[in-house]
Formats: sequence, C-alpha cells, structure tokens
Amino acid sequence: MTLSAKTCRESFVVKTSMVLPPDTNNHGTLFGGRLMAYIDDVAAIAATRHSRTLVVTASTDSVDFLHPIMVGHSVCLEAFVTYTGRTSMEIFVKVVAEDMLSGERNVCALSFLTFVAVDANNKPTPVPQVLPQTEAEKQLNETGKARALARKNRKSEF
Amino acid sequence: MTLSAKTCRESFVVKTSMVLPPDTNNHGTLFGGRLMAYIDDVAAIAATRHSRTLVVTASTDSVDFLHPIMVGHSVCLEAFVTYTGRTSMEIFVKVVAEDMLSGERNVCALSFLTFVAVDANNKPTPVPQVLPQTEAEKQLNETGKARALARKNRKSEF
Amino acid sequence: MTLSAKTCRESFVVKTSMVLPPDTNNHGTLFGGRLMAYIDDVAAIAATRHSRTLVVTASTDSVDFLHPIMVGHSVCLEAFVTYTGRTSMEIFVKVVAEDMLSGERNVCALSFLTFVAVDANNKPTPVPQVLPQTEAEKQLNETGKARALARKNRKSEF
Amino acid sequence: MTLSAKTCRESFVVKTSMVLPPDTNNHGTLFGGRLMAYIDDVAAIAATRHSRTLVVTASTDSVDFLHPIMVGHSVCLEAFVTYTGRTSMEIFVKVVAEDMLSGERNVCALSFLTFVAVDANNKPTPVPQVLPQTEAEKQLNETGKARALARKNRKSEF
Amino acid sequence: MTLSAKTCRESFVVKTSMVLPPDTNNHGTLFGGRLMAYIDDVAAIAATRHSRTLVVTASTDSVDFLHPIMVGHSVCLEAFVTYTGRTSMEIFVKVVAEDMLSGERNVCALSFLTFVAVDANNKPTPVPQVLPQTEAEKQLNETGKARALARKNRKSEF
Amino acid sequence: MTLSAKTCRESFVVKTSMVLPPDTNNHGTLFGGRLMAYIDDVAAIAATRHSRTLVVTASTDSVDFLHPIMVGHSVCLEAFVTYTGRTSMEIFVKVVAEDMLSGERNVCALSFLTFVAVDANNKPTPVPQVLPQTEAEKQLNETGKARALARKNRKSEF
Ligand SMILES: CC(C)(COP(=O)(O)OP(=O)(O)OC[C@H]1O[C@@H](n2cnc3c(N)ncnc32)[C@H](O)[C@@H]1OP(=O)(O)O)[C@@H](O)C(=O)NCCC(=O)NCCS
Ligand SMILES: CC(C)(COP(=O)(O)OP(=O)(O)OC[C@H]1O[C@@H](n2cnc3c(N)ncnc32)[C@H](O)[C@@H]1OP(=O)(O)O)[C@@H](O)C(=O)NCCC(=O)NCCS
Ligand SMILES: CC(C)(COP(=O)(O)OP(=O)(O)OC[C@H]1O[C@@H](n2cnc3c(N)ncnc32)[C@H](O)[C@@H]1OP(=O)(O)O)[C@@H](O)C(=O)NCCC(=O)NCCS
Ligand SMILES: CC(C)(COP(=O)(O)OP(=O)(O)OC[C@H]1O[C@@H](n2cnc3c(N)ncnc32)[C@H](O)[C@@H]1OP(=O)(O)O)[C@@H](O)C(=O)NCCC(=O)NCCS
Repeated sequence: MTLSAKTCRESFVVKTSMVLPPDTNNHGTLFGGRLMAYIDDVAAIAATRHSRTLVVTASTDSVDFLHPIMVGHSVCLEAFVTYTGRTSMEIFVKVVAEDMLSGERNVCALSFLTFVAVDANNKPTPVPQVLPQTEAEKQLNETGKARALARKNRKSEF
Repeated sequence: MTLSAKTCRESFVVKTSMVLPPDTNNHGTLFGGRLMAYIDDVAAIAATRHSRTLVVTASTDSVDFLHPIMVGHSVCLEAFVTYTGRTSMEIFVKVVAEDMLSGERNVCALSFLTFVAVDANNKPTPVPQVLPQTEAEKQLNETGKARALARKNRKSEF
Repeated sequence: MTLSAKTCRESFVVKTSMVLPPDTNNHGTLFGGRLMAYIDDVAAIAATRHSRTLVVTASTDSVDFLHPIMVGHSVCLEAFVTYTGRTSMEIFVKVVAEDMLSGERNVCALSFLTFVAVDANNKPTPVPQVLPQTEAEKQLNETGKARALARKNRKSEF
Repeated sequence: MTLSAKTCRESFVVKTSMVLPPDTNNHGTLFGGRLMAYIDDVAAIAATRHSRTLVVTASTDSVDFLHPIMVGHSVCLEAFVTYTGRTSMEIFVKVVAEDMLSGERNVCALSFLTFVAVDANNKPTPVPQVLPQTEAEKQLNETGKARALARKNRKSEF
Repeated sequence: MTLSAKTCRESFVVKTSMVLPPDTNNHGTLFGGRLMAYIDDVAAIAATRHSRTLVVTASTDSVDFLHPIMVGHSVCLEAFVTYTGRTSMEIFVKVVAEDMLSGERNVCALSFLTFVAVDANNKPTPVPQVLPQTEAEKQLNETGKARALARKNRKSEF
Repeated sequence: MTLSAKTCRESFVVKTSMVLPPDTNNHGTLFGGRLMAYIDDVAAIAATRHSRTLVVTASTDSVDFLHPIMVGHSVCLEAFVTYTGRTSMEIFVKVVAEDMLSGERNVCALSFLTFVAVDANNKPTPVPQVLPQTEAEKQLNETGKARALARKNRKSEF
C-alpha cells in the first residue's frame, strides 16, 4: 500500500441499476432505505479504491429525497473521495434517476458519507490524501475540512 | 381515516434480526447501508401506523455508526413518531446490537427520519397529531419543531 | 455461560415486517413457507437468548394458517422459551397480521418449535431452565412436558 | 379445468438445490426455516399441477429435522399429491440431502402439507381426486382420510 | 475419489421453480439473465455429481431464448454430463416452461456449458469418463469432441 | 419515440459491484451464472436506452470465463449497442474484475447479446439505427451483420 496522494478520478465509481418491483413499495416507488443501501455500496467501492484497505462506514450526512423514483426507472450513482483526514475519507455520491421510456433524468439525492480505513483487527489505518483536479473537485475538497469539523461536533453533542 | 391525535405507543414498532453473512463485508461487519435499509423499513411501519396512509421517505438526518456490528450479533430496532407537521411525520429510530453469545448490548445508532403521508396520486395528505405521554416522548416532541425548521433551511440551501 | 434459570422475559423477541411483493404469490397472499421461515428465525433468536449457545431446529409442530396475509399488511411475530429439557428448548411463536391502512389485527398462526443447544462440534449441550412468571407462561410451561413426550413418540414411530 | 381424477405422477415435482452460505447459520448448517420454505415451495407446485388453480397453504403437519444439512451439500425435494378432500389437497414431501463430495445421501425430513385450491376471489374451489397407482401411493392415499380428520380436530381444539 | 466411468443417469439433476414477480421485468416475463443463472446452477450440480470435486464454469455456449416465460409459469431444468476431456466436462441443459393453469409446456432453451474440476488450489484436476447408455446420450457424447474442439478454436481466436 | 439514429455513447452503461459471499461458491469464486445475470442486466439497460421501449433477451452468444473472480474483487461491466436489425439490437458487454486491495485489473469475459424491442403485446417493434463514432465502435458495427446472420443460421439448425 502506497500513501502517495490520489486523484478523484482514481476513486471514481459508476453504478447503474434498474428499479425492479422488489425494490419498491405498494405504489411502485423506490424505498428510501434501498437507495441508502445503494449509496453506501457505491461509496464503499470508491473508498476502497482510494485506500486499498478494508473500510467501514463511520457516518452518513443527512439525505433529502427530492423526487420519487418509480419502477421502470433506472438509477445511476456516481461516487468519489472528496476529502481525507488521517484515517477517514469523505465520499460524495450523486444519484440520477432516468425514466427509461422517455429518457428524462432527475438528480434525486446528493449525499456525503464518511468511511474509515481499517486493518485486519478493525483498527483505523492511514489513508492517502486527495489530489483534486477540476474546479468542482477543488471546491468539494476545500469545504471538506469544515464538514469534518461539523461531524465531530455533532457526534460529541450526543 | 380519523385525524384525532395518536400516542407514540400507537406507532411504536420493534424489529429484531440476526446479522447473517450476506449482510456483512469481508471482515464480518454489518454494512452501513444494510443498517440504513433496516432503519428506513422500521420507520416506514411506524409512520404508516400513525397515518394509516401510504408514506414516502422525505429525508434522513445524519447517522453516526457508533460500534461495528458483527455476524452472530442481533440488531433490535425501535421506532415511533415523535413530531408531526401538516403532512410530514418525524420518526425516531434507536438501534441496539446484542452479542448473542455473551448477551452484551450496545446502542449502535440513533436516527431521525421524516416521512410524508401521500394519497393515491402521491400528493401530500394531512396526518394526525402526536400525543406524547412520557417525559422522553414530550422532550422529543417539543424539540421537533426546531429540527423540522433546520431541515427546511437545509433543503432550501441546495 | 451460567445455567441459572431464566425468565420468559429474558428470551422474549419481537419482529415486525411489512409483507412485500416478493413474499407473495400471484394473488398477493404471503407464502406459507415465507411465514415458516420468519417463525423459525424469531424462534432461533429466542432460543439463543435463553441458551447463549449455537442452536439448531430439531422440529416444528403442526401449524395452521388461519387467515390469508396480504401485500400491504405487516406481520408481528412474538417468541419466547416456554419449556426446556436437558439440551432442548420449546419456543412458542405467535403471529399477528395487521392491515396497515385500517389497523385491523388478526392472529394468523400459533406455533411450537423445539431447538437444541449445540457446541462447536454440533453436539447437544445443556441449557438453563425456564422460570415462568405470568399465569400464561406457567400454563405453557406445565403443559410442555406432555408436548415433549408426544414429540418423542412421534419421532420413534417413524 | 377438468375434474377427472389425476395420478400422483401428474403432480410429481423434483427440485434440487445447492446449500449456499446465505442459507446457513454461523456453523454452516441449513436453517430449519429455509428448509420449510423449500418444502412449501415444492408442495405448492405439486398442488397447482394437480388442481390447475391458484392454491394457498392451509397447514403444515409437524416436521422433524433428522440430520444437519451443511454448506456444500445439495438438497433434493420430491413432492406429490397423496389425498384430496373437496377443495383441499394433501401433499407429501421428502427431503434428501447429499454430500456433494462423497455422494452420501440421507433422508432429512418428511412432511405432509395441506393446500386449498382457490378461485380469483380467494374462495375454495373443488379439486380433482387422486388416482394412486403404486403400492406406496395407495397406502398414503388410504391413510389420508385419517390424517385429514386429525387436522380438523387439531384445529377445532384451538 | 474414484475415476471409474459414470453414467449420465448418475449426474442427472432436475430443478423445478415457480417464476415469481422478482424474477421478471415490467411486463411480467422472466429475465434472460435469471434463466442463465438457473442454467449455470443446475449444470454445476450435475458436474459436481460427476466429478465429486469443486467445479468452475469455463464457458457457456450460445443460448437462444425461444419463448417468453411468464409470471405464474414454472420452469423445469434438466441437466447431465454428456462429454468429458481430461479435466473438463460438457453439460447439456434443457429448460421446459409450463403454464401452471393450463398445463401447456414448451422447450424454452437448450444449452451446453463446460465446467472444469478444480482442486483446493483452483488447479484443473482429472474427471471420470462418461458412459452414455441411451441413444440420445450416445449421440450427444459422440458429437461432444467436435464441440470441445470448436470451443478451443473460439477461445484461441480472442 | 423517435427513430433517428443514436450514437453508441447514448446507450453506454456502466455498472460496478462488489463480489460478496452470497455471489460465490465454497471456494470463494463468483458463480458463472451470477456473472451471466449481471451481463444480461447491464445489456438490458443499454438496449432500453437505445430503443426507449420494453426489451427482451433473444439470445446470448457463447461466453468464455477467462479468470476466476474472487470475494473482495469488484466487477465493472460496460455495455453499449453495436449493431441493429429492424427490431433487434446487438449489445457488446465487457467485464473487468479488480482486486480491490492491489488494484490489479483483468478482462474476465466479453459477450454479445441480442435483445428485441417489443410493444405492449410483446410483438417486435422497430428500433433506431446505430451511429458508430470511434474506430472500435465502427469495427464492431461493421462486423455485426455477419454475426446476426450466423445467429439466424444457428437458430434455424435447431
Ligand atoms: C417528500 C415529497 C412528497 C414532498 O413533496 P413537496 O412537493 O416538497 O411537498 P410540500 O412542499 O407540500 O411538503 C410536504 C411536506 O413534506 C416536508 N418535506 C419536504 N421535503 C422534506 C425534506 N427533505 N425533509 C423533511 N421534510 C420535508 C415539508 O416540510 C412538508 O411538511 P408539512 O406538510 O408537515 O409542513 C417529495 O419531495 C417527494 O416525493 N420526494 C421523494 C420521496 C421518495 O420517493 N423517497 C424515496 C426516494 S428513494
Ligand atoms: C436435533 C439433533 C441435534 C438431536 O440430536 P440427537 O442425536 O437426536 O440428540 P439426543 O438424542 O441427545 O437429543 C437431544 C435433545 O433433542 C431432543 N430432540 C431430538 N429430536 C427431536 C425432535 N425431532 N423434536 C423435538 N426434540 C427433539 C431430544 O429429546 C433431546 O432433548 P433433551 O436433551 O432436552 O432431553 C439432531 O437430530 C440434528 O442435528 N438434527 C438436525 C438439526 C438441523 O440441522 N435442523 C435444521 C435442518 S434444515
Ligand atoms: C477454466 C479454467 C480453470 C481453465 O484454466 P486453464 O489454465 O485454461 O487450464 P487448462 O488450459 O489446463 O485447461 C483445463 C481444461 O479446461 C478447458 N477449457 C479452458 N477454457 C475453456 C473454455 N473457455 N471453454 C471450454 N473449455 C475450456 C480446457 O480445454 C481443458 O480441458 P481438458 O482438461 O478436458 O482437456 C480457468 O480459465 C479459470 O479459472 N476460469 C475462470 C472460471 C470461473 O471462475 N468461472 C466463473 C467466472 S464468473
Ligand atoms: C425474441 C422474440 C421476440 C423473437 O420473436 P420472433 O417471433 O422470432 O420474431 P421475428 O422472427 O420477427 O424476429 C424479430 C427479430 O428478432 C431476431 N431474433 C429472433 N430470434 C433471435 C435469436 N435467437 N438471436 C438473435 N436474434 C433473434 C430476428 O432476427 C429479428 O431481428 P430483426 O427484426 O432485427 O431482423 C421471441 O423469440 C421471444 O419472445 N423469445 C423469448 C424472449 C424472452 O422472453 N427472453 C427471456 C427468456 S428467460
């Protein structure tokens, strides 16, 4: 494992899935919890690509579900690492739903998750830094420190 | 459907599950996303018991995962409605993990979700108010207004 | 592991689940086998809470399915240990279905299962006795010996 | 739909499956509830082949689990209709486990289930009679009446 | 493990399953990929019965899906080993769908797969030869060599 | 639905997934059938993006599984429409496995599938043509006619 910094490109992950009946409630809209599971899944792959270690979810920031997602839509999730601490990584996930018959697309949720790299004994272990390259990546990286601090405060208030 | 106020008891739901290998990653700890799906699931049952309508997840507040949950543990989730607006309901979910061989228990996550009652056309529809009874229920109910406001601000900042 | 007797409360388990399309047949009623799997699942948690060992299902007594359970209902299962032999535990499971829109509830099945506590080599291992406290618990405990005997006869007739 | 009698052969169903990790507990043995779900599944196919209507599980007689079934074994279930009332069918299911590396086979469970044929309104509807042909089929058919009676008594005792 | 030749009967496997809503797309027809998974599953059991070793899928020949298979149909898959090389086995799989209400049956797909027997290090290991007995088995066995050769050429062209 | 030609880009789909224990056999390698199901899944999304109709799998060409894919690897599938007839679309799928700890990647399978666009009565319906743009796309498109012909011959030989 090398700890030289990595670009956001290197951790970038895409996952497209059809929304099928078992994923939905009785009026045919995707369960929020199912989408949260997809979000965690794709974020875990991005985090592992960045750290090349085992990872665990430390927290999920709040998520607003902006539009219902129906049976027959697909969801496309994109994730990459935006900011790192010593052993933690912040991952940004964007969810776009697509009506497969019309082609219409909507951003349905945006989410920040924090994963921690762990060793074989489940102890936190250091991660490489992030090398943001595009303007959007740089902005997400710069504002990451404040979000990490807010999470620390949130947890200590418990 | 009657809109007379309901107690927290009336929406209270319990769900206990074993953590099985398909729910876990390669070092045997429960996926964060799987727990989020359980949380959404039990919150949806509580919301439906309160409103007796179809419901959709409007948002999930941040969730901190406090302890790893292992294969061979069980998780017990408890949920009830704490606060309502006109069409929205706030649900509080507590997750307790139990080591099934030793009996040791840990609070692993606390979470607030907001569900909206919807009619057959997916349009928001009014919900009964909450009648908190215990001290804990009253406190969660009184602080609910501030949390609802914070969510509105959060969403409008997007 | 201590073998001092345990109350029924200590093994008591509750599990509430929505009935979803994948759990049902083509006319929207829950599969009997799916309900049997839920029953075994919740009984296994109760048995493990009582013995704090690994457990295996030794047998299921007959089960009558009293009412169809439909998509959009929830099922609430309650289980606790009622009677013990040297290594075996009898668990009583009650299944209540709830029409989530009307709130109407029905007892849909009652069931007795026998689990055996096993060690790492899958060999039967002793379990604590049961301390019944309520009238209902005492009655189930007293009649347990006769049911255990009937099972032995049934198995030897094979 | 014709109601002329049908042989046991006509409803005979075979289903072979590998036992995989998600089907098993932490020491690698198949869950009793998973096997019950397989049993119900194969019995439902046999009942539908006999009645050519929708069917629902009315009851499961007691089941003894005679041997543990491990990861890496396969289970082969065989089912056919043994006896019929006016609208109900008794199905016999035999479960044989096979150690896939050694080829050793064991009868692991025998079970009788009762299914009822239903119409589109979930109302019981008549079924064809059974034409047993082999000695074993004839014996199961002749003893079916007594088992049906015992189930009636069992249910009325509730 | 003995390497004396085995009949096709010895590896013969049958698996019958109902087609349920989660297996189908939005117009109620079985996914091709779901059927491919069933085909691989039953072929793996046949290959393991023949070799009594671990096995891996080396390749799937082309498959034509001849008829749509609907919710409420069952599929019955039959598989057996038709031809062997030193470490590889060719398995023939036939898929018959049955409309459960009318009883009408259709051959929906025929398929040849090649599995390789492997040891604990995933290295190919020898398998017994096939003893074809019926005319159909003999014909499939005799034409197997040509198919194996065609696969070798196909793979080397890559 | 417009039938003006579409680029390969417009139907291009990416799906990345972790390989988890339920996807694998007893020595931890991904089932061939599970991979076939992923391949069909991603191809169906690509076909639907191209046709904006319901689609069904008409056939899968042969697939060679070049490397075992282990628990802890991820698989990344890429798919796009390469060639069209009147109502049929050929989709090319590439599967790349990645060892998540080392980052090593391998092409594990290449596959061509044919999907047919269907209307609400499951009748074949016309699809837009493909506008290949890169050299690789053009080559796949030009050789598509020969592959379609080979499939017609293959099917008529049955
Ligand atoms: C939730 C939803 C119905 C709200 O619709 P809307 O057009 O914003 O409706 P309104 O503005 O009338 O708001 C209705 C209520 O929802 C609340 N609300 C809306 N968005 C919210 C959010 N992100 N968090 C919390 N509450 C929210 C409003 O405050 C309002 O509450 P009140 O009636 O108690 O005052 C809509 O955003 C939606 O359908 N989202 C997708 C839901 C879904 O499918 N979830 C699963 C996604 S996988
Ligand atoms: C249950 C099992 C461990 C019993 O093993 P055994 O060799 O019969 O052991 P014993 O004769 O010592 O019996 C142990 C206890 O089990 C009880 N028991 C055995 N079979 C039973 C049955 N069918 N129903 C109820 N109790 C049973 C005995 O009465 C005895 O109870 P006690 O110690 O309280 O007096 C064994 O039959 C087994 O492993 N079965 C398979 C379990 C399994 O894998 N279930 C899931 C199948 S999918
Ligand atoms: C199949 C596999 C073990 C073959 O390994 P290999 O190094 O090519 O081994 P060899 O060259 O010694 O070939 C072994 C046998 O496999 C056969 N074989 C190899 N590739 C094959 C293919 N694509 N189709 C049919 N047979 C094939 C060879 O002809 C040879 O047969 P024989 O012993 O009967 O003469 C290897 O390619 C592999 O592990 N593939 C992945 C398997 C897998 O995990 N499948 C599921 C993927 S999701
Ligand atoms: C695919 C299907 C719709 C074709 O129906 P059909 O009556 O053969 O229709 P046609 O002869 O008009 O053929 C329609 C197109 O399909 C193509 N086609 C048919 N069978 C094919 C096959 N096995 N492989 C590739 N293409 C095929 C034809 O070449 C034709 O293409 P074109 O319009 O581009 O020239 C029909 O066979 C079917 O429904 N099969 C089952 C599909 C399914 O349910 N798949 C999942 C099974 S689990």
